[in-house]
Amino acid sequence: MRTSVFVGTSLDGFIARPDGTFDFLTGGSDADGASNGFDAFFATVDVVLMGRNTYEVVLPFPAWPYGRTPVFVLSNRPLPPPPRDAVVEQIAGNPDEVLARLSDRGFEHVYVDGGATIQQFLRAGLIHRLVITRVPVLVGSGIALFGSVDSDIRLKHVATRELRGGAVQSEYEVERPTDTKTE
Amino acid sequence: MRTSVFVGTSLDGFIARPDGTFDFLTGGSDADGASNGFDAFFATVDVVLMGRNTYEVVLPFPAWPYGRTPVFVLSNRPLPPPPRDAVVEQIAGNPDEVLARLSDRGFEHVYVDGGATIQQFLRAGLIHRLVITRVPVLVGSGIALFGSVDSDIRLKHVATRELRGGAVQSEYEVERPTDTKTE
Repeated sequence: MRTSVFVGTSLDGFIARPDGTFDFLTGGSDADGASNGFDAFFATVDVVLMGRNTYEVVLPFPAWPYGRTPVFVLSNRPLPPPPRDAVVEQIAGNPDEVLARLSDRGFEHVYVDGGATIQQFLRAGLIHRLVITRVPVLVGSGIALFGSVDSDIRLKHVATRELRGGAVQSEYEVERPTDTKTE
Repeated sequence: MRTSVFVGTSLDGFIARPDGTFDFLTGGSDADGASNGFDAFFATVDVVLMGRNTYEVVLPFPAWPYGRTPVFVLSNRPLPPPPRDAVVEQIAGNPDEVLARLSDRGFEHVYVDGGATIQQFLRAGLIHRLVITRVPVLVGSGIALFGSVDSDIRLKHVATRELRGGAVQSEYEVERPTDTKTE
């Protein structure tokens, strides 16, 4: 099983403002899922895993962004009901357990989303790929993409491209921390 | 007068570890001043402005990195003596005052360095250009390149290139905040 992050950030590394809004990401033409590569990326995943905060941000959107792709929401509490036709399930547990359960269910490529969830899975060494689109603005505060790590996490740069509107999209593979874990 | 930042960071935005060391930046071949563009950049500046912390980090280096280019160190306290042949002067004041004094002295292109100093001058709307080289590693904590801002600072993406070792170097012009200031 494979896990990927596909995320937009400000140049100073925020995926949202303190209140969860992310107007600064969608101002440019990179908000277009075709031109920023999101549509092509999303076609390769068969399941979405997000934190409860992200779910509650996405829920009021006029259109549910994930179609019929199953969405698992990490939470210990019951979820607000999903939109009609959305496929949403609550899941709880530590990152290893959660991925094991998704694997048992037959899923092969997980789209991991939400600041806290991404950080938690990165720390656990369970993210394979990161596609980060940096929008040329400094917002100064908010929900950070990255957080603390137990030790350096090395990545391999795969490719970088410029999008319209001045956003820069870089793709990285995480060098698997297996060695570190067995030290 | 023009002000530029030329800086390396981890993918999570740190220019140094909590203790001021930046081994994670120099591991790759991007540490080479010729290949990462630093030498060409440095040839265009006629003065360096840095915070006291940066000065004290650079001071013990086996070779003073700035040659005979004048270096102004922002500090209210007397400085440790510079290496022989280095041209170092203490300066104090708010960002506007400091740049006015450098301009009065005939300088035309200031290389602004050091996390706190960069943040202070960005907040004051006094940085024109940023060249950021992102090294593909997450270090989790340390001295951040960016800090809080009073309001969004928009930038214009100029160019991005990939360096050897997986670093990605992006150049931005800051959109001048003159309008914001007069609101």
